[in-house]
Amino acid sequence: MSGSSYKDAGVDIAAGTRAVQLMKAAVERTHGPSVLGGLGSFGGLFRADFARQLADPILVASTDGVGTKTKVATALGRFDTIGHDIVNHCIDDILVQGAEPLFFLDYVASSKLDPEAIAAIVGGAAAACEAAGCALLGGETAEMPGVYQPGEIDLVGTLVGVVDRARLITGDDLAPGDVVLGLPSAGLHTNGFSLARRIIAGWDWEEPLDTLGGRTLADALLAPHRSYLAELRATWAAGVTVKGMVHLTGGGWIDNPPRVLQPDVAFDFTWDSWERPALFELLQTAGDVPLHEMRHVFNCGIGMLVVVDAADADRARAALASTGLSVPRVGTVAAREGGAPVRFVG
Amino acid sequence: MSGSSYKDAGVDIAAGTRAVQLMKAAVERTHGPSVLGGLGSFGGLFRADFARQLADPILVASTDGVGTKTKVATALGRFDTIGHDIVNHCIDDILVQGAEPLFFLDYVASSKLDPEAIAAIVGGAAAACEAAGCALLGGETAEMPGVYQPGEIDLVGTLVGVVDRARLITGDDLAPGDVVLGLPSAGLHTNGFSLARRIIAGWDWEEPLDTLGGRTLADALLAPHRSYLAELRATWAAGVTVKGMVHLTGGGWIDNPPRVLQPDVAFDFTWDSWERPALFELLQTAGDVPLHEMRHVFNCGIGMLVVVDAADADRARAALASTGLSVPRVGTVAAREGGAPVRFVG
Repeated sequence: MSGSSYKDAGVDIAAGTRAVQLMKAAVERTHGPSVLGGLGSFGGLFRADFARQLADPILVASTDGVGTKTKVATALGRFDTIGHDIVNHCIDDILVQGAEPLFFLDYVASSKLDPEAIAAIVGGAAAACEAAGCALLGGETAEMPGVYQPGEIDLVGTLVGVVDRARLITGDDLAPGDVVLGLPSAGLHTNGFSLARRIIAGWDWEEPLDTLGGRTLADALLAPHRSYLAELRATWAAGVTVKGMVHLTGGGWIDNPPRVLQPDVAFDFTWDSWERPALFELLQTAGDVPLHEMRHVFNCGIGMLVVVDAADADRARAALASTGLSVPRVGTVAAREGGAPVRFVG
Repeated sequence: MSGSSYKDAGVDIAAGTRAVQLMKAAVERTHGPSVLGGLGSFGGLFRADFARQLADPILVASTDGVGTKTKVATALGRFDTIGHDIVNHCIDDILVQGAEPLFFLDYVASSKLDPEAIAAIVGGAAAACEAAGCALLGGETAEMPGVYQPGEIDLVGTLVGVVDRARLITGDDLAPGDVVLGLPSAGLHTNGFSLARRIIAGWDWEEPLDTLGGRTLADALLAPHRSYLAELRATWAAGVTVKGMVHLTGGGWIDNPPRVLQPDVAFDFTWDSWERPALFELLQTAGDVPLHEMRHVFNCGIGMLVVVDAADADRARAALASTGLSVPRVGTVAAREGGAPVRFVG
């Protein structure tokens, strides 16, 4: 071997630099007065102004990926939506504890850097951050020859938010009779893509389908994860106490609801209380997916559960619906009495 | 297709649950009184006690990976060291701005979850966090069939630390005559692995080599990234003002030093002021790597640069060396006068 260089070995540092230039403006639009310094510093700097405004600030942090939704983006060559997915997914993950976002960091990796694709991904993340009033504080693009399949990417996000301790949502005081409201998802969000892609492998994803109301599978699959920040802000502004929240992510309706339950209570969900979106019907039918598996893998049309006292249910519904979402009542909290933590009727 | 399930599609939720159980104890050992709640919550909770102790707290955050050092770990089936790498890399990334770590989050992904490998990786990360007094606040393990090459993994970390604004290190006041001290690296740290692996592809990595003083390539390559937190704490405790720091990561001696320089100053590095570790000599010789490329890709034996006023140099060296490292003087700050930002002599 003669004259080895990093570029020969599959790593192109100049392409990384170009990607940074392409995404710089979109990222800087997310930088409010709390952000110090600029891109190029080793770490992002965020002034802890919240410490003056909150009595007992608790930082809430979450790291997550978008799963193999990246494979839908790479198959279609459409990279403008999954940045929204990772930001909104992380927002919902900390929102369930009552926290609002402060700053976000992204990580994008592939076997070979494609500066335009990375700029589109990070541009989408920046737009989602801007919409949430959250700073995109930093990130990393990594070229990993031999680790990723050719043409494939992974996308990871980390969000840090804050909640005043007195407003932390734990679910600890859920009680029989509490009402569970459901916030509609925009599609699969970021879960169940390995199964979904297997079911529809070989289909034409760009063809408008009658079963999807004329929509293509491409559009239905890539619809970004919905953030429920605006809905919850409206609810808190209306003075409604949210007793518990469940983000319906990986593990779906089976694994996520128990995470907020004390041992003495259970959820009774009314499965026919909302209309199943066409994409889920299509996947269930085409894949002959058992109902339990549907519930375990997919959000089935509801992205977030909000639990309130029965006396607050009407006010909560009105506030949650103020942004235009329909907000079905999808269940109640019941005494567990030795039974399963999650039960389905209807 | 009949009876699709998530496990058929290559995603094993039970394996993920098993991995969580294996790493739980190691993670919980990192949880001091600031950490609220436990594993299983949607987001990790960290009480912002620092807000009471610091006049103007600035959060410093960094996301990074370990690059294709993961491929060395997977090739050798040794997963106990790279968790240390990602934590220590992130610590050094925020340390350069004067920040000390508060909490860390990890992300590990592969085409198929191997619970034992993931538990070893996260166990290593937890041990490095514990050593630094940093909470391992959360993390995610992701199974991404079709995204990763079989048997390969990616490992991503995000660290959030804090520094009081008055102690933020920016490098803004570096001046001609300032002294640059070098802190020895433990090996390649987390950069240059794509090139290194290419050079030594086909060698027996488990054979003790005379050129490595009887060490194997496996041990030399996997030596974890060194954290310089203890050295800097000793320096601050001694009352020495650190004017600037450079973490020698991707881009090496060429791209990283300019990041702390104002336009009027430059670094003059004395290239023969420290002994080049044998691993770098081996790679340069075996790969016929040009000197500029060595400097661009590898840390070449120095993991961190610390810039101090010349009058403080002796006290700084003594403090930095108090943990046992040798601390060569590797250069000075000079007037740039229209020249290059980084110059090498010797």
